[in-house]
Amino acid sequence: MRVIGLDLGGTKIAAGLFEGDRLLKKEVVPTPKEGGEEVVRALAQAARALGLEGVRAVGLGTPGPLDFREGVVRFTPNIPGVKDLPIRRLLEAELGLPVFLENDANAAALAEHHLGAGRGFGSSVFLTVSTGVGGGVVLGGRVLRGERGQGGELGHMTLLPGGPVCGCGLEGCLEALAAGRALEREASYAYARSVSVPELFALAQEEEKARRILLQAASYVGLALASLVKAFDPGVFVLGGGVALNAPEAYWEALLSTYRRYLQGWEAPPVRKALLGADAGLLGAALTARFGVEDGAR
Amino acid sequence: MRVIGLDLGGTKIAAGLFEGDRLLKKEVVPTPKEGGEEVVRALAQAARALGLEGVRAVGLGTPGPLDFREGVVRFTPNIPGVKDLPIRRLLEAELGLPVFLENDANAAALAEHHLGAGRGFGSSVFLTVSTGVGGGVVLGGRVLRGERGQGGELGHMTLLPGGPVCGCGLEGCLEALAAGRALEREASYAYARSVSVPELFALAQEEEKARRILLQAASYVGLALASLVKAFDPGVFVLGGGVALNAPEAYWEALLSTYRRYLQGWEAPPVRKALLGADAGLLGAALTARFGVEDGAR
Repeated sequence: MRVIGLDLGGTKIAAGLFEGDRLLKKEVVPTPKEGGEEVVRALAQAARALGLEGVRAVGLGTPGPLDFREGVVRFTPNIPGVKDLPIRRLLEAELGLPVFLENDANAAALAEHHLGAGRGFGSSVFLTVSTGVGGGVVLGGRVLRGERGQGGELGHMTLLPGGPVCGCGLEGCLEALAAGRALEREASYAYARSVSVPELFALAQEEEKARRILLQAASYVGLALASLVKAFDPGVFVLGGGVALNAPEAYWEALLSTYRRYLQGWEAPPVRKALLGADAGLLGAALTARFGVEDGAR
Repeated sequence: MRVIGLDLGGTKIAAGLFEGDRLLKKEVVPTPKEGGEEVVRALAQAARALGLEGVRAVGLGTPGPLDFREGVVRFTPNIPGVKDLPIRRLLEAELGLPVFLENDANAAALAEHHLGAGRGFGSSVFLTVSTGVGGGVVLGGRVLRGERGQGGELGHMTLLPGGPVCGCGLEGCLEALAAGRALEREASYAYARSVSVPELFALAQEEEKARRILLQAASYVGLALASLVKAFDPGVFVLGGGVALNAPEAYWEALLSTYRRYLQGWEAPPVRKALLGADAGLLGAALTARFGVEDGAR
């Protein structure tokens, strides 16, 4: 089946023409800063540039909480002007094709499950640790969206009651303890100056203070995975995102050590690094389109 | 479809003959203290006493971690001598009927979903707060068992790193913070004498010290539910168990207040009290048998 995948990011839009899982052609354009309708127009233009002939459907991966029933992006923290945008209806009108939406972390989870590190497992739980922490749960080959689109928002599970306040407004979320921005917050406090994630990684090779910040964050990720075993017991965990994938070896050791410590007496699913890199979102958008047509669901 | 449900408890075995969801006949016998084979014989005898004519299958709800693939109860804390018991094979040999196993909390979750407080919702997450804390997740009308039978073990999600050590050996589990035995531990410490759950409930009507213990435990349940929204986003939460259902009103207020506090900015699924009482396990066992036949799965 020929489909188009669209991956809407804060700085760029990636568009891919797919035949099955095979990427035939790819376009990347900057994300307009003006707001909702400009974004829709840019998405449509990127799709058209790939050629719409023979295309059955379009899949769109987008940040922000989604209303799947109405096909609306409620808001996105990184693209100003996108608020309560009926993106599905607008894009369908532009392209004359059915459009299927997915949250960007869910799309990446879907791609890693079918084509990446989760391949061959019956189910997978995906966590991406970068600026924020995103999650996605794939059961029976499909994303668990939950009844209100809030399923798989694993970055906002509470790990430490009374812990640091998250961007989402709640306290002690995994994201507030382990995301790149959380690492920067802790490092900048401890060093009384602005410290970036790459700098923290470098410092951690030499200094106990930096190492401690890094390993504490890694432990929270391990703790979260252990709790998720008792919720989903997935076939595999897939970990992606710039922080997790670029962190020094000690980060992974701390993560896995805490994970195993909180699973003593339990069976521990394997933990794998994500394989698809930046393309995961685009591949997931294409799968969303294909499954949307096959399943006849939204 | 005519099926038999069997509910294996620490003190008694309940057996029910069902036509669809309708209970035609019920037997209750004591659980043998001697061990595995005696337990199997008692289960078979209870089933036979109901009459096997026209019965398509038997569903068995049992405590303890299960190996669903092999049909084995690994162990149960409350029935001595039950260890690595191939209960499915033994019971099938005794009865000459297909036997379908389910964890007891999962069976109750299934019953509440289809016949009780979860009826009419697309999915439900069930939590039973009694001596321990059990859980069950029902998605698409079926129990989420996970890949190794560890799914829905919600009592052992870590809520407080560094918290009290649980019966399972890990620390800070929901069960270690909110189960009846946790309430007794806290109350007995605070009053420097043995205090039971009913006594704590009574004391909490009059004394701040007792109330604080109770409300803290309730808050942990509310916190767990809020995190579960970000994992499953279920249609409804169903809460059962002697502690939750018999607790004073203040317990529920604290539970719901923490739940809502950790869902600010999110949509909160409704929280309902379980409706089926002690029969949930038996009804769930019968549903397990029926779905086992219908789905052709184990």
